[in-house]
Amino acid sequence: MANIESRLADLGLTLPAPKPAVANYLTTKRSGDLLFVSGRVSRLQGVVGADVIFEQGREAARDTVLDLLATIRDDLGTLESIASVERLHGFVRSAPAFTQQPAVLDGASDLLVALFGEAGRHARTATGTNQLPFGAAIQLDLIVRLDA
Amino acid sequence: MANIESRLADLGLTLPAPKPAVANYLTTKRSGDLLFVSGRVSRLQGVVGADVIFEQGREAARDTVLDLLATIRDDLGTLESIASVERLHGFVRSAPAFTQQPAVLDGASDLLVALFGEAGRHARTATGTNQLPFGAAIQLDLIVRLDA
Amino acid sequence: MANIESRLADLGLTLPAPKPAVANYLTTKRSGDLLFVSGRVSRLQGVVGADVIFEQGREAARDTVLDLLATIRDDLGTLESIASVERLHGFVRSAPAFTQQPAVLDGASDLLVALFGEAGRHARTATGTNQLPFGAAIQLDLIVRLDA
Repeated sequence: MANIESRLADLGLTLPAPKPAVANYLTTKRSGDLLFVSGRVSRLQGVVGADVIFEQGREAARDTVLDLLATIRDDLGTLESIASVERLHGFVRSAPAFTQQPAVLDGASDLLVALFGEAGRHARTATGTNQLPFGAAIQLDLIVRLDA
Repeated sequence: MANIESRLADLGLTLPAPKPAVANYLTTKRSGDLLFVSGRVSRLQGVVGADVIFEQGREAARDTVLDLLATIRDDLGTLESIASVERLHGFVRSAPAFTQQPAVLDGASDLLVALFGEAGRHARTATGTNQLPFGAAIQLDLIVRLDA
Repeated sequence: MANIESRLADLGLTLPAPKPAVANYLTTKRSGDLLFVSGRVSRLQGVVGADVIFEQGREAARDTVLDLLATIRDDLGTLESIASVERLHGFVRSAPAFTQQPAVLDGASDLLVALFGEAGRHARTATGTNQLPFGAAIQLDLIVRLDA
């Protein structure tokens, strides 16, 4: 039991306090065996390739996964009911010439794989954008599959 | 029966005539119990935070939900087969300094909750973008669950 | 058998060699009867409405579908297990004044319908963006339904 919590501890990571939804939506919505996880922006603000450097963006992507997991744990009561991570969509607020969105989002994907193993490997889309809520550098949303 | 239609009337709202797809795609596609609803842009054009002010963007988000519901009713023959609203993705065409995408999209989310009650509460991602089809200010797409 | 391969040949098209994932994600992830197909950028780089003209963008959208199908065939071993194309999300890297994203993406949608017939008709969202991985002009991702 509590494998994911153990792995977090093994990696020296702790989940932050869950952040509430910032507007009139649910942080997660269960739909059959799928859980749609609402978009979460990074605490880090700025434009990757301008005032935010690549390494900061990558770290912010990892930290945003911790925020997403904190939310899921808060909503479900546990992370252990996650059977598989199906899909990640990441938006990177990008300077006009910045084109390494996939490598930035590996900060998120690497952590999901480290925590969930093979079940954490997921389909992904990495998109640039000119602006995100609150001026954040990164935005991530997830679709995960829950144990039936 | 026709609860959603009644609630629309109670709110003083009427659905517009359904707009056809603007290109070679379906306005909705059923997939098992899920209905994928194609992206719909607002009739309002412009850039939120520049020539479109916040309140106009919020109203455009609400009105775009009416367009989406008109489309769903046209495709399914009724709105009463909607069991639950699962996920909303909204794009706000944003001026460089505009960061209140979530509050703009509450214009959409508030209406969904007013119409569908608890079942209308949904996961959501609010993203900024530099440009949308036809220069629209807002774009929304939905995943809804239908009665089995 | 091999209907899709035959139709490709009839159209004078051949699938390119499958491109690997460019970072730590899966090119496709099966989730029940759904297959989430990771975002794939066009080989064509540039900004539609600036250094890339409309017709080039449309052709790049079509070619990106060929790359997506090559990936699906590589992952599943066949294209014949695709029961239906459910949803396409396309991002068009857009000049500030370019607003014909839907017509560009018809390059993708037209090919899906030509290959899969009625089952290839899909829900779709066409979004503009300021930047994509590797400076690509187009990005597409798919959700398809597989034979049960």
